[in-house]
Amino acid sequence: MPSNKQVLVAGRPSGIPQPEHFEIVDGEMPTIGEGQILVRNQYLSVEPAMRGWLADQSNYSQPIEIGSVMRSLTVGEVIESRTPDFAVGDMLMGWFGWQEFAATDADAVIRKVTDTDLSPSLALGVLGLNGVTALLALEKVGRPVAGDTVVVSTAAGSVGSAVGQIAKLLGCQTVGITGGPEKVAICLDDFGYDAALDYKAPGLEEALAAACPHGANVYFDNTAGAISDAVYRHLALHARIVTCGTASVASWDPVPTGPRVERLIMTKRLTMGGFVIFDHMNEFDAASRRLAQWVREGKLSYREEIIDGIENCPGAIADLYKGQNFGKRLIRLARF
Amino acid sequence: MPSNKQVLVAGRPSGIPQPEHFEIVDGEMPTIGEGQILVRNQYLSVEPAMRGWLADQSNYSQPIEIGSVMRSLTVGEVIESRTPDFAVGDMLMGWFGWQEFAATDADAVIRKVTDTDLSPSLALGVLGLNGVTALLALEKVGRPVAGDTVVVSTAAGSVGSAVGQIAKLLGCQTVGITGGPEKVAICLDDFGYDAALDYKAPGLEEALAAACPHGANVYFDNTAGAISDAVYRHLALHARIVTCGTASVASWDPVPTGPRVERLIMTKRLTMGGFVIFDHMNEFDAASRRLAQWVREGKLSYREEIIDGIENCPGAIADLYKGQNFGKRLIRLARF
Repeated sequence: MPSNKQVLVAGRPSGIPQPEHFEIVDGEMPTIGEGQILVRNQYLSVEPAMRGWLADQSNYSQPIEIGSVMRSLTVGEVIESRTPDFAVGDMLMGWFGWQEFAATDADAVIRKVTDTDLSPSLALGVLGLNGVTALLALEKVGRPVAGDTVVVSTAAGSVGSAVGQIAKLLGCQTVGITGGPEKVAICLDDFGYDAALDYKAPGLEEALAAACPHGANVYFDNTAGAISDAVYRHLALHARIVTCGTASVASWDPVPTGPRVERLIMTKRLTMGGFVIFDHMNEFDAASRRLAQWVREGKLSYREEIIDGIENCPGAIADLYKGQNFGKRLIRLARF
Repeated sequence: MPSNKQVLVAGRPSGIPQPEHFEIVDGEMPTIGEGQILVRNQYLSVEPAMRGWLADQSNYSQPIEIGSVMRSLTVGEVIESRTPDFAVGDMLMGWFGWQEFAATDADAVIRKVTDTDLSPSLALGVLGLNGVTALLALEKVGRPVAGDTVVVSTAAGSVGSAVGQIAKLLGCQTVGITGGPEKVAICLDDFGYDAALDYKAPGLEEALAAACPHGANVYFDNTAGAISDAVYRHLALHARIVTCGTASVASWDPVPTGPRVERLIMTKRLTMGGFVIFDHMNEFDAASRRLAQWVREGKLSYREEIIDGIENCPGAIADLYKGQNFGKRLIRLARF
């Protein structure tokens, strides 16, 4: 009888999840009940947000219980169905977890992957949580208008790279902040930023001043920390800050200190707004279709970093926080 | 020949303006040119915002030059006019400065005081910068809806007390934060807050938790500092922070540190927005008329603290930051 390899949560990290916080087990092949589907996963997602999902603190979602399968979006094929909603052979994106097979209710499905001319892996990246977050957060919180200067942190990452390109499509000047000369080159060559700044090099403030001579009108922030402190000082009047991630902050327990922002917020009449995609799931499909069209037209580039084998899941999150990955990180399952 | 007593700026404060930063002189009675008016001031305003106007740092207005008359809104009567826009006897509110007489162009006038059934002093407080700031900042940035819990810092102050009452008129639960038992009583008795918390007493966090069992939906912030840090931790999902003042921060040079806000902003999907009334002067008159109607109907209370004599101007700002004043602070000119 075939087994179902699963990645279980073995401990609760106080900061960034490490390999020891997970355990790989051979589970039993699941069986489905009435109304359920059996999905064979093809790609598992690896997200910076998983840190928050695992944290034992107030977050936007319930913490994952110790001993349960690691929560993850995946793309997989329906291999058995006891619901009229989905048929065998359907390719689905949904909350099927870090495991080979998932027996699940229909409400775990986010969307049916209909862009069959494109790789199904894209449903987890540029057409998935990352791309849709980039598009909706930029439009709803950043509210860019043509001619604006838009600064993006983690500019080469899977959210940031989409933000930079979408802002460019909307007629903005784009300034990416990333780590190291290799990523600076990717920002300029692959993602079309007008300027790309290396936060690891000295002189970030001077570089920001030069790249944003009139100040930045939108700051799409995936880092917080010292990078954001510097950008805040270079915002234009009435600028919008999209607070979408905190990749530069190793731990929020205890809450780290930084320069108080209230005076800048007031005197420059800034708006700082948080964004979590799960508030906007009813717009997910429409946003994904817009992104797919840009991909087909060659207007929206992306990078994927595909790692083979479920045994690579446990160490896959920590690498994201080291800034060592290039593109959307996915685990491709070996038996597929 | 009559003289014109004036308060000049004698030095630039690094923090809160003190008496030594001003000098009182006997200026010459000014004469007006074509298109100008001569105004005899009746009431001079004293504002916390004057700290920012005097600061030699980027602010929302040009710093006041050393040696010039202190910038202030005042209420005064036209005693000579060489413009068809205003007639002798008109009562005006405008930028006429800390002085007895002002010869000025028409563009220094904010509005003609038309609510002649009410004291002209109100044009500088509940119907002036303070009340209009309260109303427009609350509506535009706070966006309260009936049933929301609205927390207000400097709750007994001239902005905060109007915010609390307007929020109540809009159907909200109101929680005021103020300093000391006397102001707590004023909040409850005069300004109708549902709860009033003393930040000088121990247990502010517990008091906030008790007063906002479902979290606060709007925080109207006039203080920043430790009070705001505590309120931020008790906000509901999707809450709005109106960043309108920083009374608790003695100096912004260097910028003080505090707990980083990005994780709260993101995970609770908060919006933090700065407000400066000078962006909205085209709405000033309409807002002032709405406030006047509430005052006439007895729905909007206010307190004034009127000090007689221009010689009291130099020390009048610093007191505001000690939390020692009760109500809108005004200087009434002796000869009037």
